[in-house]
Amino acid sequence: MITIYGMRASGNCYKLQLLLDQLGHDYRWVDVDSAGGETRTPAYLAKNPNGKVPLLELDDGRRLAESDAILCYLAEGTPFLPDDRWLRAQTLQWLFFEQYSHEPCIAVARFIRGWLPQDHPRQAEVPTLLQKGAQVLAVMEQHLAGREWFVGERYGIADIALYAYTHCAGDGGFELADFPDIRAWLARVQAQPGHTPMQR
Amino acid sequence: MITIYGMRASGNCYKLQLLLDQLGHDYRWVDVDSAGGETRTPAYLAKNPNGKVPLLELDDGRRLAESDAILCYLAEGTPFLPDDRWLRAQTLQWLFFEQYSHEPCIAVARFIRGWLPQDHPRQAEVPTLLQKGAQVLAVMEQHLAGREWFVGERYGIADIALYAYTHCAGDGGFELADFPDIRAWLARVQAQPGHTPMQR
Repeated sequence: MITIYGMRASGNCYKLQLLLDQLGHDYRWVDVDSAGGETRTPAYLAKNPNGKVPLLELDDGRRLAESDAILCYLAEGTPFLPDDRWLRAQTLQWLFFEQYSHEPCIAVARFIRGWLPQDHPRQAEVPTLLQKGAQVLAVMEQHLAGREWFVGERYGIADIALYAYTHCAGDGGFELADFPDIRAWLARVQAQPGHTPMQR
Repeated sequence: MITIYGMRASGNCYKLQLLLDQLGHDYRWVDVDSAGGETRTPAYLAKNPNGKVPLLELDDGRRLAESDAILCYLAEGTPFLPDDRWLRAQTLQWLFFEQYSHEPCIAVARFIRGWLPQDHPRQAEVPTLLQKGAQVLAVMEQHLAGREWFVGERYGIADIALYAYTHCAGDGGFELADFPDIRAWLARVQAQPGHTPMQR
């Protein structure tokens, strides 16, 4: 059985929970409190030298890091990752958009507001993150106009990856009122068979 | 013929030049001065709403953004991207590491030092970027101990993606003296057939 090392309230980890639950794939979940420093212990760094969750471990001890790489690995050969070369490329485009443009604004604002003290110096980053994150949401809103899903005609891992931190963007102070197509897409994701909520 | 919209001195764009040259793939290159604001014009935003280079455009007008997604698309079916499921997953792991952990330190320090005035407020970010970037380089150094390439036994797009900003890390103020395995790997990459340097 595969093992996921993760923190339940982390969107990057929740992505894997959501996909695995929807695939009906058995897995063992090992809680690692990333916010509390448990990814920086020598024991954890021996598993993932980059000191981050989530981490996938196979029965034979092989390990894979990076949430969106794990999504691709687990979704291979399932309806959650298209076979078509162009649709796969589009999926990767949105996964890299998620990790490079979306997560560093939308997840980081949530982390600062939700996990750091109100007088922490990083609170000063929040206004800039809100401004940049609104631009990211505008890119998503524009793409979703007239579309049901991010890639092709089908719900898949691009939707899962982007859903993870978009559905809880309010925790970071983002307002989705101006993004009706995003809100409609969030509702479609939540209505998918086997959808499980994030533990917050 | 495919078209790449890119800025020659950008590592994210250079990745594509390097792969295409090594594949012997014909392409048209359209210079877009990202640092000078040319990715934020209405005409460019109509091509890539996220306002970034590089961008791949096919003959039929379809477009693909995100440098590492483009690498995967172009490398599909070539020796630069393994067929094996686990090696593909490892490749993606390193591509996401590159975009999430490496580029935001190592490329951004280079940008601030190379493109922004000496009295620009963002110069204050450099010490933190140097510290975080050194941790990223340490992860690479550890991985390269006893290995020739990042994934499997073969040079591929994980090496190309990581080479792009590592070989010019000195521009950002990084010192590679403490990373002998990285320096040996850089030399191996430079010795590959068809290697072309970045225009700086």
